[in-house]
Amino acid sequence: MLTINSQRLLDNLTALAAIGATPEGGVNRPALSAPDVEARAWFRAQIEAAGLHDKEDGAGNLSALLPCDTPDAQTVLFGSHLDSVPHGGRFDGALGSLAALEVLRTVKEAGLHLPVHLEAVAFTDEEGAHISLMGSRAIAGDLSAEELAHPHSSAAAFDAGLLRAGLTREGILSARRDPASLAGYVELHIEQGTRLEEASTDIGVVTAIVGIRSWWLRFNGQAAHAGTMPLPKRQDALWGAADFILQAKELVMKQFAPGTVNCGMIEAAPGAFNIVPGEVRLSLEFRHGDLATLDAMQAALLPLAESVAHKYGLSVEIQPASHTAPALMDEAVVQAIKGAADALGLSHTRLLSFAGHDAQAVRLIAPGAMLFVPSVAGISHNPHEFTRNKDVVNGANVLLHAVLALAEEL
Amino acid sequence: MLTINSQRLLDNLTALAAIGATPEGGVNRPALSAPDVEARAWFRAQIEAAGLHDKEDGAGNLSALLPCDTPDAQTVLFGSHLDSVPHGGRFDGALGSLAALEVLRTVKEAGLHLPVHLEAVAFTDEEGAHISLMGSRAIAGDLSAEELAHPHSSAAAFDAGLLRAGLTREGILSARRDPASLAGYVELHIEQGTRLEEASTDIGVVTAIVGIRSWWLRFNGQAAHAGTMPLPKRQDALWGAADFILQAKELVMKQFAPGTVNCGMIEAAPGAFNIVPGEVRLSLEFRHGDLATLDAMQAALLPLAESVAHKYGLSVEIQPASHTAPALMDEAVVQAIKGAADALGLSHTRLLSFAGHDAQAVRLIAPGAMLFVPSVAGISHNPHEFTRNKDVVNGANVLLHAVLALAEEL
Repeated sequence: MLTINSQRLLDNLTALAAIGATPEGGVNRPALSAPDVEARAWFRAQIEAAGLHDKEDGAGNLSALLPCDTPDAQTVLFGSHLDSVPHGGRFDGALGSLAALEVLRTVKEAGLHLPVHLEAVAFTDEEGAHISLMGSRAIAGDLSAEELAHPHSSAAAFDAGLLRAGLTREGILSARRDPASLAGYVELHIEQGTRLEEASTDIGVVTAIVGIRSWWLRFNGQAAHAGTMPLPKRQDALWGAADFILQAKELVMKQFAPGTVNCGMIEAAPGAFNIVPGEVRLSLEFRHGDLATLDAMQAALLPLAESVAHKYGLSVEIQPASHTAPALMDEAVVQAIKGAADALGLSHTRLLSFAGHDAQAVRLIAPGAMLFVPSVAGISHNPHEFTRNKDVVNGANVLLHAVLALAEEL
Repeated sequence: MLTINSQRLLDNLTALAAIGATPEGGVNRPALSAPDVEARAWFRAQIEAAGLHDKEDGAGNLSALLPCDTPDAQTVLFGSHLDSVPHGGRFDGALGSLAALEVLRTVKEAGLHLPVHLEAVAFTDEEGAHISLMGSRAIAGDLSAEELAHPHSSAAAFDAGLLRAGLTREGILSARRDPASLAGYVELHIEQGTRLEEASTDIGVVTAIVGIRSWWLRFNGQAAHAGTMPLPKRQDALWGAADFILQAKELVMKQFAPGTVNCGMIEAAPGAFNIVPGEVRLSLEFRHGDLATLDAMQAALLPLAESVAHKYGLSVEIQPASHTAPALMDEAVVQAIKGAADALGLSHTRLLSFAGHDAQAVRLIAPGAMLFVPSVAGISHNPHEFTRNKDVVNGANVLLHAVLALAEEL
């Protein structure tokens, strides 16, 4: 049975992890940063060294191509992303991108003749340093000029990043692909959770990806002297933010499990030991796999911010940051992944993905699905993110055979 | 009865408020910033224009002098500070400094011959942009080289500020004054609270200034992916910080009223919508007028941080930032202020000061006390800080007659 070159894949993971490496053992490679641009150049050099064709579209998505003999044939696409969250880990995105390249090399070296083109892709800005899932949403035609004008970062930071990577907003909008050209999409990723590890299961077959809604909350109170303003008279914006953080957690745990909620950023102004905070800016993000439940979470959490603000004599402004819908995976691709795992003698289970992934955007224009391999202790978006070598290799082999199954079905 | 020149004082307050003015109507004049240096130059020009002697010591304390005929005589010192908190108001410090200068001009113009030197002083960095009460603690000999090496800001920011103001650390340590040279100290300040306004009282006679203890708390948890790490398994440092903020408030309100507590600064790391905060840095400050109670607050609040951290599976590091002891005012100076208010037909009441003031440092080397005038709605450390003209003038006249009473007692 055909298998990938394990050592070559592991060596490539090590080499990529050196780009943007942090002292803690992770990587700091936010999209369009200098280390991200360096990682992209390195990936292109790997493609060329393997004797494969390389291609970069207007959104900076970087692909290795293995064409078949029929120019009009459809493409089976597979891959992930090279960017990381700030001070993230070595496997998130990197595994799926490098395994995809390894699959292509394996197929090429085996001299297989398939009825489809194969394309291993690394998408731009999956993590949303500027625009979440930018590259994959660009090929799905799911981005607008309006959205590109309001990146997560700032227009200036986004422009600087685009310049660094040789990209333009017009180019991003031009990257849309014809759905008829795509036979399917498969993405290998680390689980970033503990379900596979706890169940001692080799492979997670993803059946749906959660939707994510994120917001900025600005609690407004009254800045005051921290000694002379008596506690009962204060309008301390941080009291409101703190109460919201705790109540939002309780609410989601009690009413919306296994949905999640996170407040990852907070700023208090004016910001001094001796000034009562008059203003607090808080990020809010929540996730669920079911659209109706996501709506119900929103209908509970946003009024909670209002009622907590009212309790402390504050007001709250709520601004949407970004919204992604839940995505159901394609059952035929799910079956191809399960079949590949079975053929390799690996255990597997169906899972919901609580992380957003490029697969959910590609799913808008192609039948697609994902597979997960175990993350040690579930640690992710963290320098200590780790996946064992055997799971890296298992994942790449399942990817290989799922891709071959999709290619041969056609 | 001798009174100050009201219009001249009000005009000077307006002129000073233009230096570092903010669009909201306040001032942004942190110590040793460019606007603070500009305000100091303006104050010196006012001293010279009034035909008074000016003096600057090694800590940058800037004085107007009206010497008496006896070189060996003691000095009655009075004043406040010119610096503001970031985005603060026009009256905090400015009123006491400009009223002190106005008192000196009034005495000079009246041709009074007093048995003491009079000195109107503007102290450096009362608000603690770098070192809280730096100038007044310098004259009291209450600063060490060690403390100057650890400013609130950073060593680099402090050095830049010292350079801007033409000061040095050695100079600051040289500014110590001989207690025998000082007959007394009086400081006029806005109340920064609502007690005078609510009681329709003209003058607050301060009997003690609260002690202040401030700390940095660092809650350490585990950064994680905000989707894939299930809520029950998170070690979210922001949950601990939020719970501490709310419990500390409840504890102080229930057990230590009228003591105060404030968390004015907060930072979460790594800082992204989709990362569970692994680390939160929180500032903590609490105040009380009684030393034993301040100790009891510390003995309750610091273990509370530990127990809250434990509850969420976090650890907490606690670092002291600065400590100032409560200061009892001198009863003879308190009586001089009350006598002055009575002579002017103004109502008065004894008060505790919940704000730290230069008077508490000067109190280490001289008999001293303070008087307050009402703050509209108690708003302070805020651009909307306001004190009515009649209260500005009342305060300056009480300062004048308290100073004269102290001078004539000798």
